[in-house]
Amino acid sequence: MATIQTTDTELFDFMQRELYVSVLSDVLDRLGYREQAMDATIRPIYTDAIVVGRAHTALSTDVYEMPSDAYSAEIAAIDSLRPNDVLVAATNHSTRTCFWGELLSTTARARGARGAIIDGHVRDVRRIEQMQFPVFATGLRPVDSAGRGLVVAHGTPVICGGVLVHPGDIVFGDSDGLVVIPQVVEQEAIERAKEKVAGEDRARQDLERGDLLRDVYDRYGVL
Amino acid sequence: MATIQTTDTELFDFMQRELYVSVLSDVLDRLGYREQAMDATIRPIYTDAIVVGRAHTALSTDVYEMPSDAYSAEIAAIDSLRPNDVLVAATNHSTRTCFWGELLSTTARARGARGAIIDGHVRDVRRIEQMQFPVFATGLRPVDSAGRGLVVAHGTPVICGGVLVHPGDIVFGDSDGLVVIPQVVEQEAIERAKEKVAGEDRARQDLERGDLLRDVYDRYGVL
Amino acid sequence: MATIQTTDTELFDFMQRELYVSVLSDVLDRLGYREQAMDATIRPIYTDAIVVGRAHTALSTDVYEMPSDAYSAEIAAIDSLRPNDVLVAATNHSTRTCFWGELLSTTARARGARGAIIDGHVRDVRRIEQMQFPVFATGLRPVDSAGRGLVVAHGTPVICGGVLVHPGDIVFGDSDGLVVIPQVVEQEAIERAKEKVAGEDRARQDLERGDLLRDVYDRYGVL
Amino acid sequence: MATIQTTDTELFDFMQRELYVSVLSDVLDRLGYREQAMDATIRPIYTDAIVVGRAHTALSTDVYEMPSDAYSAEIAAIDSLRPNDVLVAATNHSTRTCFWGELLSTTARARGARGAIIDGHVRDVRRIEQMQFPVFATGLRPVDSAGRGLVVAHGTPVICGGVLVHPGDIVFGDSDGLVVIPQVVEQEAIERAKEKVAGEDRARQDLERGDLLRDVYDRYGVL
Amino acid sequence: MATIQTTDTELFDFMQRELYVSVLSDVLDRLGYREQAMDATIRPIYTDAIVVGRAHTALSTDVYEMPSDAYSAEIAAIDSLRPNDVLVAATNHSTRTCFWGELLSTTARARGARGAIIDGHVRDVRRIEQMQFPVFATGLRPVDSAGRGLVVAHGTPVICGGVLVHPGDIVFGDSDGLVVIPQVVEQEAIERAKEKVAGEDRARQDLERGDLLRDVYDRYGVL
Amino acid sequence: MATIQTTDTELFDFMQRELYVSVLSDVLDRLGYREQAMDATIRPIYTDAIVVGRAHTALSTDVYEMPSDAYSAEIAAIDSLRPNDVLVAATNHSTRTCFWGELLSTTARARGARGAIIDGHVRDVRRIEQMQFPVFATGLRPVDSAGRGLVVAHGTPVICGGVLVHPGDIVFGDSDGLVVIPQVVEQEAIERAKEKVAGEDRARQDLERGDLLRDVYDRYGVL
Repeated sequence: MATIQTTDTELFDFMQRELYVSVLSDVLDRLGYREQAMDATIRPIYTDAIVVGRAHTALSTDVYEMPSDAYSAEIAAIDSLRPNDVLVAATNHSTRTCFWGELLSTTARARGARGAIIDGHVRDVRRIEQMQFPVFATGLRPVDSAGRGLVVAHGTPVICGGVLVHPGDIVFGDSDGLVVIPQVVEQEAIERAKEKVAGEDRARQDLERGDLLRDVYDRYGVL
Repeated sequence: MATIQTTDTELFDFMQRELYVSVLSDVLDRLGYREQAMDATIRPIYTDAIVVGRAHTALSTDVYEMPSDAYSAEIAAIDSLRPNDVLVAATNHSTRTCFWGELLSTTARARGARGAIIDGHVRDVRRIEQMQFPVFATGLRPVDSAGRGLVVAHGTPVICGGVLVHPGDIVFGDSDGLVVIPQVVEQEAIERAKEKVAGEDRARQDLERGDLLRDVYDRYGVL
Repeated sequence: MATIQTTDTELFDFMQRELYVSVLSDVLDRLGYREQAMDATIRPIYTDAIVVGRAHTALSTDVYEMPSDAYSAEIAAIDSLRPNDVLVAATNHSTRTCFWGELLSTTARARGARGAIIDGHVRDVRRIEQMQFPVFATGLRPVDSAGRGLVVAHGTPVICGGVLVHPGDIVFGDSDGLVVIPQVVEQEAIERAKEKVAGEDRARQDLERGDLLRDVYDRYGVL
Repeated sequence: MATIQTTDTELFDFMQRELYVSVLSDVLDRLGYREQAMDATIRPIYTDAIVVGRAHTALSTDVYEMPSDAYSAEIAAIDSLRPNDVLVAATNHSTRTCFWGELLSTTARARGARGAIIDGHVRDVRRIEQMQFPVFATGLRPVDSAGRGLVVAHGTPVICGGVLVHPGDIVFGDSDGLVVIPQVVEQEAIERAKEKVAGEDRARQDLERGDLLRDVYDRYGVL
Repeated sequence: MATIQTTDTELFDFMQRELYVSVLSDVLDRLGYREQAMDATIRPIYTDAIVVGRAHTALSTDVYEMPSDAYSAEIAAIDSLRPNDVLVAATNHSTRTCFWGELLSTTARARGARGAIIDGHVRDVRRIEQMQFPVFATGLRPVDSAGRGLVVAHGTPVICGGVLVHPGDIVFGDSDGLVVIPQVVEQEAIERAKEKVAGEDRARQDLERGDLLRDVYDRYGVL
Repeated sequence: MATIQTTDTELFDFMQRELYVSVLSDVLDRLGYREQAMDATIRPIYTDAIVVGRAHTALSTDVYEMPSDAYSAEIAAIDSLRPNDVLVAATNHSTRTCFWGELLSTTARARGARGAIIDGHVRDVRRIEQMQFPVFATGLRPVDSAGRGLVVAHGTPVICGGVLVHPGDIVFGDSDGLVVIPQVVEQEAIERAKEKVAGEDRARQDLERGDLLRDVYDRYGVL
């Protein structure tokens, strides 16, 4: 991937400010990537959280006793975050453990990471909201992970929210949900997304003045 | 149904301003209509959304390839909305497709519709909130419906949120959930709801000053 | 239990102001009480609700006809609330009935109760929020309980949110979820929670300045 | 209901021998009773079990401590079974308790009852099969009900498998599932079922010799 | 697809007699087709049912009123079955309708079809077993489809049991579950399956005489 | 644990022949161990399978790519089975992978193991039935585990079917389900089970001759 770090920062800032997730989903559809939207169970933990960055993956499994070393693999996963990364954690939709919290958010932000996406539970939601560190999760649970969940790998492909995520894929989430943008199409997808935003503006104006959806769809081809 | 259009507008404005859903549910109970409250999976997509109007129904099924004509039936369902209608869409609780979004909200509002209720997913939540167009749904998913869901009928009875909804029934939703008011009892139900609101005010006052619930219930018969 | 009533008031006010649920969960873990956090299905019904008090339990079962006496056992359960109590109701995760609402909240507050936790549905969410009476539940449904749910006992141990709750246990809930503090360890748990809060402040500062999580964890032993 | 006991015995023996559940479901459909088939979660616990009789209902709720009197209400429910009754128990799909077993089957058979239908778990499946006492349930669990489930009523209407069952309704179950035949239509339903069985035989013969389904359906109106 | 009809008959008879589903799943894995096994919710409705043939697909949606023409699309789907076809029906895991029964089985067999796979409910299980017509489904429900489910398409790709099935793909099911064999790899997959069966026989012999799994796996590379 | 190996063999043969799971569940209840019965999702994969032995535990997690070494930990878990062991595998109720099959059954039997209990899917059900090697699982899926599930530990406590299982605990399963007998009470539990079996015989005789359940329960105290 030829994109350099500073470009990523500019790109992700631009996406966060100007694009939105549903338009990226539409252009990925048209590029033939139709299984890139995570399922609806993963939600932002505070209103208006937006996340965009490159996936840094982790895999956690439920455990049922306190291991001799409960945290080392998790610490390694977090300490290896780089600027513009987003932690993407697969817990197999665990309802037992809690993968993320305030101190991990503080650590991740200090490494330059831009957010976290977990197909499981998190905690410390108010403090994370105060930090404005965007976290997406399936729910809240106030427990520590030690003896409940164990990181078994990081940096491997994972399925999170029903989508296969490779390390380095762009993940993008807002109030509508999350999409995963494969690296091979990221430039084309983002270019097309810019164009589609403009097209929707024109359709919206015609619909607001009372045109039939039938006519507007025939005119612009968007819905 | 003798109610004329202007009366509907006044009625629905009044209901939205002065009544609430739980009191309608209670009077429907007493009129013998005890299965009129939708289940708890359908929620307003933004805080304090209130919807009231006559049901205009649609039925959508999951599909697994791009049809030759993905949108025509959906466009017909939306373009046939009339003033004071509420779109009520049954998707069989689909977690695959996304039935509703901003452009459909814009279209529906331009036709005079008062909201949308979907037993499935929607998108563009922030823009819909900015429009203050009340939408109730089971969740958010950022995908387009083309090749995922297909409208197969509109204007037929559907089960939405566990309740059989006939076209023309009044649907009423607020932060507590949704009720469907069958047309044969709508006048009596609304009259009784007005009276019950007054009764609850008196009970509340007595409870606030510390009376036992036992005594207040014996006094007013409300809980 | 030697704790007197005024002490409970002071203690619960302090906990509500200074402590949080996840830190109590952690100290209970270390005291060997690892199954004290309710599952993630029970949520505060309005933002920033915090509840703390002694459990006053009730058990409700779904019913399918209007009983001759629909409310007496429920009224007895509510009228027996004492100052600093929190109503903890097990409905077996009913999706049929609605256990709690505004008038019950008004009654409970008039008795000095501090909140309600229900593993089922409630209604009147906006009015309860206006009262700032903290209620935690699995969802909202606008129906009355008569003929849908029936209180069959109060003051007995119940499992609520997956945790066995004995009458008199301290229950504590905030935006991260809920923990149940068994009476035998309540003093030690609260003392340790105070200390842990301080420890996390130091760790947070080190992480904010960019220290590796590995080093900070080795230094303070918290995550 | 004028049907006398001996007639019931003859009727139920005939139904068990000559009719089947799906044909009863079809004639109930045509009589306008379209919600009489239980959902697919309740299954015969041994192959080829067939049950038919009049519903004797019970309602059980999950409990979380050993009550002072765990069995009295359950014993009363069983001891009040009469000849040709079928025990229909609603447990709210409990996965905690186990409502039925071998000794209850022995008791029920000694009272002349013809079977049991439980929307929950049972045990002693092999011994019940040896008795050839038809039991339908959602699963098997080897636990005793004491301290797990408590009978709170018998002889009241219950919803079992999604269908409202009144005491005295005929319940009929075979390998395809279960239907509830309301008392007001039982004579007409059974008469029509006899006729429909004959019609299906003719259609089957034509289909077996290779006629198109289109033609056979047009000829006999059955599918 | 160059395979002629008589070859299909011979091939499917051979597969039914000599191969099994799990070995096909393994060779598809090795050919890079790793998402070809349906999920575990679809089961044979009688013991030892085995199905193999080419998929003839249908799509059904739940409906909530009796349509003017309830059966025509379904009849067309069934009457278009050809020899060696297997009906593969997607109902979106409907728990409301019942897609298949004895008369449809009779019709399908008369057309030369080899079985049916439904991600929903069926009925007439005992008569279908007597016919030895292999049907796989998620459960049994004794209802007619009219007014409950409606066929909206046939001959299109569908997702059934979590797997995308194209018309003409070989579907193969036994007591272990179901796999879908894409047409482009069917010849290679079946050749490799024959070889793998032989390899497993050698490994089994070594394991039976007590060799360590470690050694046998190193020797033959199968598990 | 003083019990020697030959005693275990004799004990487990006796239990398999003379005792049954529900009676063990009852005596564990009375000894104060009330959470020892697994949930109803784990079933014998063939009729009349009975398993009894000492738990040898394994923990598997879902994975989403082919690991460099897919089988080593699994092989180690299986090769370390000793005579009279039963493999108890926790997969977190995986619906993706398949933990067990014929070759593992062959290996386990060659090591002297008496069966396998998996809270996930297995395959090769017919061949395992031919071996009469008792396997209990949540379902059947025809896939290989490589790249779908990975063993991460063996010999640690696991939660399987909702019950905490320690290595060396006796696990006992039949057609009614499964119980875990903690080592500290195994001798007393088995002694009491022998006595209870006799008591039930007397109660059954009295019930068969028509005594009321009320009287028989008062006489023998069993239900």
